[in-house]
Amino acid sequence: MINVIGIGQDRDTMTLGALKAIEDSDVIVGYKNYIEAISDLIEGKEVIKKGMGDEVKRVEMAIERSLEGKTVAIVSSGDPGVFGMANVLFQIGSKYDNIDINVYPGVSALNYSASKLGAPLHDFAAISLSNLLTPLSEIENKLEHALKSNLIIAIYNPISKSRKEPFKLFMDLTLKIRGENTLIGIVNSETYPSKVKVIKLKELDPDKINMFTCLIVGNKMTYEENGYMITSRGYVVRERLHPMSVDFYQRYIDGETPTGPNKSCGYYPCHEDGQYCDFCYCPFYPCGDPSTGGRWIKNKNVWSCEDCVWVHKKENIDCIKPYVNKLVKEPNDLLKNKKALLKLRRACILSNPKLE
Amino acid sequence: MINVIGIGQDRDTMTLGALKAIEDSDVIVGYKNYIEAISDLIEGKEVIKKGMGDEVKRVEMAIERSLEGKTVAIVSSGDPGVFGMANVLFQIGSKYDNIDINVYPGVSALNYSASKLGAPLHDFAAISLSNLLTPLSEIENKLEHALKSNLIIAIYNPISKSRKEPFKLFMDLTLKIRGENTLIGIVNSETYPSKVKVIKLKELDPDKINMFTCLIVGNKMTYEENGYMITSRGYVVRERLHPMSVDFYQRYIDGETPTGPNKSCGYYPCHEDGQYCDFCYCPFYPCGDPSTGGRWIKNKNVWSCEDCVWVHKKENIDCIKPYVNKLVKEPNDLLKNKKALLKLRRACILSNPKLE
Repeated sequence: MINVIGIGQDRDTMTLGALKAIEDSDVIVGYKNYIEAISDLIEGKEVIKKGMGDEVKRVEMAIERSLEGKTVAIVSSGDPGVFGMANVLFQIGSKYDNIDINVYPGVSALNYSASKLGAPLHDFAAISLSNLLTPLSEIENKLEHALKSNLIIAIYNPISKSRKEPFKLFMDLTLKIRGENTLIGIVNSETYPSKVKVIKLKELDPDKINMFTCLIVGNKMTYEENGYMITSRGYVVRERLHPMSVDFYQRYIDGETPTGPNKSCGYYPCHEDGQYCDFCYCPFYPCGDPSTGGRWIKNKNVWSCEDCVWVHKKENIDCIKPYVNKLVKEPNDLLKNKKALLKLRRACILSNPKLE
Repeated sequence: MINVIGIGQDRDTMTLGALKAIEDSDVIVGYKNYIEAISDLIEGKEVIKKGMGDEVKRVEMAIERSLEGKTVAIVSSGDPGVFGMANVLFQIGSKYDNIDINVYPGVSALNYSASKLGAPLHDFAAISLSNLLTPLSEIENKLEHALKSNLIIAIYNPISKSRKEPFKLFMDLTLKIRGENTLIGIVNSETYPSKVKVIKLKELDPDKINMFTCLIVGNKMTYEENGYMITSRGYVVRERLHPMSVDFYQRYIDGETPTGPNKSCGYYPCHEDGQYCDFCYCPFYPCGDPSTGGRWIKNKNVWSCEDCVWVHKKENIDCIKPYVNKLVKEPNDLLKNKKALLKLRRACILSNPKLE
């Protein structure tokens, strides 16, 4: 029996199953750092420490002991199924016809890093930049597709002393496709506790990244607040309609509101010169989504749009207007159809006009 | 203080940190199924059970109790950062200026499912098919990019009673881009223990999929063996060269071996009629990768290529030949440069001629 066990990122993220499986094993096999991390749990057991990079040898030794009738634990940090030891164990194990394998999943670096950063994930990709076994062209292709499709991206094995090129490629592609203001969450677990920061791509210094770093790349809905990195998922915050918004939308529906910049308005420009006023009141208010530039006025339950001009840009108005006209036949539809309205906003942010 | 806690998929996948944080909390908030799963851990605590779909309300209640000075736990299955409660908590929490949030990451459904399936992951994407808050066009775009880039794909929230369309879209796109023989790992955790199976896309029946199902979509390097789903990562299996291979490559380097179908050979066709014989002996032998059709002869340490014709196809020979010629200047280079040779094979499988 071979247990391939994810020990998580620290003792707090070790699972109860991992703890018990380590206890039940006779022989512990692993890279020396992982063995040290669990030294208090393995006293009296046979321990086989191996260096990094000889995964096949580690697995062969584990199989050998298992064929002798021992219960063997192969330990990895995080989750052994995520860039860990599970794949190589199954591949080498298939040389023999009687290897019994149990995988104990764990908290992987991306899950741990996300928890330290706040809540940066939505749909995401996890991509390793190690080109030891994977051609750089394959890594490039995966990065490019992930970046183009607005997935959050977790980067594993970003850089090592001998591998600098993939990280440069990653930075270049991210700059080209997502831009210099893309938020990057950085969690470095070389020392305890982990060092956590949120920066913009343009501030990213490769010299400060090493193999103990996991990076999380934000998307168009990701924002920073109080040092946390958060990706909006579009939850509906329900609020009563403001009477002036009801009045505006009644006139909008009746075809009585101006289009384009309303320079005759006493408040023009309430945001910026050149703004369009087709939606004097935002149909998504309150979106509750700080990635727009809006924010809550603390403890007042008031959403401020001061720094959001999204609904006053011509291209956004062009995208949403036909659908708002379908979804809002009376002012109260702004509340009733709010979920559909927020999805419409997402679709237009992603420049994807095929709406449901 | 609000602890948002991932309780994993079962007690074995609960972390030590989650266990302690639940213990330390005064109030437990969660969807009723999750509350039931930890009922033995929360005796005597205030419990707020809410139904599915009212995440914002759950969070508002948690914040309310926290502002009263209680330590509150919001519990989710899996990892609260992966399609869980963390994002909405940070978003709603930002209404107030004194909410202290701790995220306890957990073993997410994809990690658990991968562990039950074997070792299906390499670089991967996790995509939710729920179009409640996300436009279908956005989901489609993400699926399409992920499928095209050979990422393994974990599918969350595949289907519900009212949402069948996204799953149909997922099946259609996967068929179009990856083909009907794409391996799909299915883990259904509606009952305990989870039901696990590995099928081909053409065998996938949407009526057997529900909200308790996580699917893992294989890529070109994924294979099934003994019911396990495994994705090859390209580890190097070192073996001495066969004397006949040494002899062949010496003649190959000297320009003395035939190209195209070698019909004058007494063994032609050793695999299939029309096969090309430029590489009579495979330069990647033994690749140890069952996704090729090869397999280990059990307990003999012999790799059999019986069902692999990859290196006898013209298009593959055209792709690898210029690079093999650079990498192999004497037969021993087949061993010395094996890592580079296996990367070359991967690059050609992915039809990506830009090699390093």
